[in-house]
Amino acid sequence: MADKSDRMETAKKGLREHTGSDYAPVYLDSSPAAEYYSQLGMERTYGDAWTRPGLDMKTRSMITLSALAGMGLDNAFKAHVRHAENVGVTRAEMIELLIHLHGYIGTPKAGVISGLVRAAWKEKDAEGDKAS
Amino acid sequence: MADKSDRMETAKKGLREHTGSDYAPVYLDSSPAAEYYSQLGMERTYGDAWTRPGLDMKTRSMITLSALAGMGLDNAFKAHVRHAENVGVTRAEMIELLIHLHGYIGTPKAGVISGLVRAAWKEKDAEGDKAS
Amino acid sequence: MADKSDRMETAKKGLREHTGSDYAPVYLDSSPAAEYYSQLGMERTYGDAWTRPGLDMKTRSMITLSALAGMGLDNAFKAHVRHAENVGVTRAEMIELLIHLHGYIGTPKAGVISGLVRAAWKEKDAEGDKAS
Amino acid sequence: MADKSDRMETAKKGLREHTGSDYAPVYLDSSPAAEYYSQLGMERTYGDAWTRPGLDMKTRSMITLSALAGMGLDNAFKAHVRHAENVGVTRAEMIELLIHLHGYIGTPKAGVISGLVRAAWKEKDAEGDKAS
Amino acid sequence: MADKSDRMETAKKGLREHTGSDYAPVYLDSSPAAEYYSQLGMERTYGDAWTRPGLDMKTRSMITLSALAGMGLDNAFKAHVRHAENVGVTRAEMIELLIHLHGYIGTPKAGVISGLVRAAWKEKDAEGDKAS
Amino acid sequence: MADKSDRMETAKKGLREHTGSDYAPVYLDSSPAAEYYSQLGMERTYGDAWTRPGLDMKTRSMITLSALAGMGLDNAFKAHVRHAENVGVTRAEMIELLIHLHGYIGTPKAGVISGLVRAAWKEKDAEGDKAS
Repeated sequence: MADKSDRMETAKKGLREHTGSDYAPVYLDSSPAAEYYSQLGMERTYGDAWTRPGLDMKTRSMITLSALAGMGLDNAFKAHVRHAENVGVTRAEMIELLIHLHGYIGTPKAGVISGLVRAAWKEKDAEGDKAS
Repeated sequence: MADKSDRMETAKKGLREHTGSDYAPVYLDSSPAAEYYSQLGMERTYGDAWTRPGLDMKTRSMITLSALAGMGLDNAFKAHVRHAENVGVTRAEMIELLIHLHGYIGTPKAGVISGLVRAAWKEKDAEGDKAS
Repeated sequence: MADKSDRMETAKKGLREHTGSDYAPVYLDSSPAAEYYSQLGMERTYGDAWTRPGLDMKTRSMITLSALAGMGLDNAFKAHVRHAENVGVTRAEMIELLIHLHGYIGTPKAGVISGLVRAAWKEKDAEGDKAS
Repeated sequence: MADKSDRMETAKKGLREHTGSDYAPVYLDSSPAAEYYSQLGMERTYGDAWTRPGLDMKTRSMITLSALAGMGLDNAFKAHVRHAENVGVTRAEMIELLIHLHGYIGTPKAGVISGLVRAAWKEKDAEGDKAS
Repeated sequence: MADKSDRMETAKKGLREHTGSDYAPVYLDSSPAAEYYSQLGMERTYGDAWTRPGLDMKTRSMITLSALAGMGLDNAFKAHVRHAENVGVTRAEMIELLIHLHGYIGTPKAGVISGLVRAAWKEKDAEGDKAS
Repeated sequence: MADKSDRMETAKKGLREHTGSDYAPVYLDSSPAAEYYSQLGMERTYGDAWTRPGLDMKTRSMITLSALAGMGLDNAFKAHVRHAENVGVTRAEMIELLIHLHGYIGTPKAGVISGLVRAAWKEKDAEGDKAS
């Protein structure tokens, strides 16, 4: 909770480490309010949390995935599956996380998130093939 | 997914390690169906997941807490806060988990779960004072 | 969707058959708007649905319980457990419903609703002992 | 809660004012039950609520959007964004509503609804360009 | 909760009766953990619940649909609409279930699930036309 | 998103206007991380949103109530009912908000939130009687 410019710098560093890419805010329109809105999410996740010590990024990745699975937020879950490998979550650990959550979130939600994992991996593998 | 008696034995071992106490199923009534129901939860969490290798119990504790927070299942969340210390989650890490989840679950849910953490710790501390 | 007075009469009949008691609306205050609000729920459940042919009341009881369990609406779920026996859902069938839903809603929610079933039965049994 | 034909007339008037178009019920099939179902939603929203005095349509639009955001009902949220301008919600106010809700619903849900606002505006602007 | 191979056999029988087709597990990858995960859902629904006596498959279909509607799990709901006819739920009863749930889940969710029913029926009818 | 001390000052002003009382953060323990956590909610609601122009506090109160109702966050909803009168929401408007939301959130949730309104008003009236 430093001043505004510092928080965005910290947030961008956190985002880069987690996602492997630079921050590209998506604006609703060209108003200052829309710019303000675009920064809120960055600050409240990467700025205020991911970049803190106390939990490593791999643990933060797995607890974020679990919370998103519990809330049923599918697109965000899938994006975080893609990023998880950047901070050290292996594919074997991702399957283990699915197995663990299955009994807590129930079979239909478990079916949804495993489908998202499969889709995220397929996308990444296709990009990797193209890149190599 | 071994046979029935094995699964309950495994589940009881997992429960004991996580909660520090033995399994006491709560029956709906004296019917076989009620007994069957009482075992489902044990098997599907402690039997099929907690006792597997691949993720340590500390990580399993933190992802379970995060999923429960996301689903808004307050009583289960509070019980898992109590057990978390048994598998190595420190109080500092618990606060860090709250800070991390805040931006994902939103302020009102964050207020609920921090209240549950406070209540669980108060209970544990009161028990500890009594025990010593 | 008959006229207003008819709908409330139909709704009251449905409520009586399901719950075994007469309708007692709870008013927010003495304003016409508060009275209007008190009637909305009666009409939209007992008036527009429960009293229709096409599904018997026993089936309606079980699908209502399942939807309430899915939504995590605990107090309403418990009230419906109490009423279910009036329209023919046996205790054995109630346990079977719990077993069936377990895998869909997940273990923590399953723990919540079985606790509510137990509490509802205990209340009913205590009332029955008093009545006899 | 007038009689049936009156309620549908009132509902249609409310729908027209909010959405700018006439009511076109979508039937499941040609049965009377399907027609009945198609009317339930109209009556319970536009018939019983939107057309009442006590809150103006602009306020009703904003509280509906907020409830839909809280429930995570994305398609309905997007449709209501489209209609909001008809009852006086400006784009600046819509962004302000997003900013306000952000801290309550959390960052991932906030990302979802801002994406829906952007999509709804893009659609409307494309239609406006075609119309002019 | 028989041993592993028995449970999968029972589960496959239940799935076949409900869905009218054989079980085709979708693997995340070729690891044993992924195979294990693929079996969890089968066992926890078809193996442990659907194949039990105590409630007939038609009732199980309707309570599953109601729980899925309450949880807002759209893809699973739609799949279950497709299967419901195999276990005796008529289209008239499906509409009646929609009418009943409307007042409990609210208008926007009711709009979502009726859209899913319509889509599922359209798919089935198109397949039927092709088959004949 | 000014610097840290400014944001808390702004947040406290917003809280005071909305709730009619000064800010009393509830700490989990005496660690800096716990203090940090206590401030996150203040900043993300009162600091970053309530105190902005663009929507008046009365509108902010009603949209917050609607989002909390949609999310099923009962304690927060009740607290906001208590505060709503401070920013100009009359009791008649509160009932109108309940009537409006009824059709969107469904009858059981509508029953929950009207019970919370009744309880909040009863508390306030009892305090008022004591104060006078």
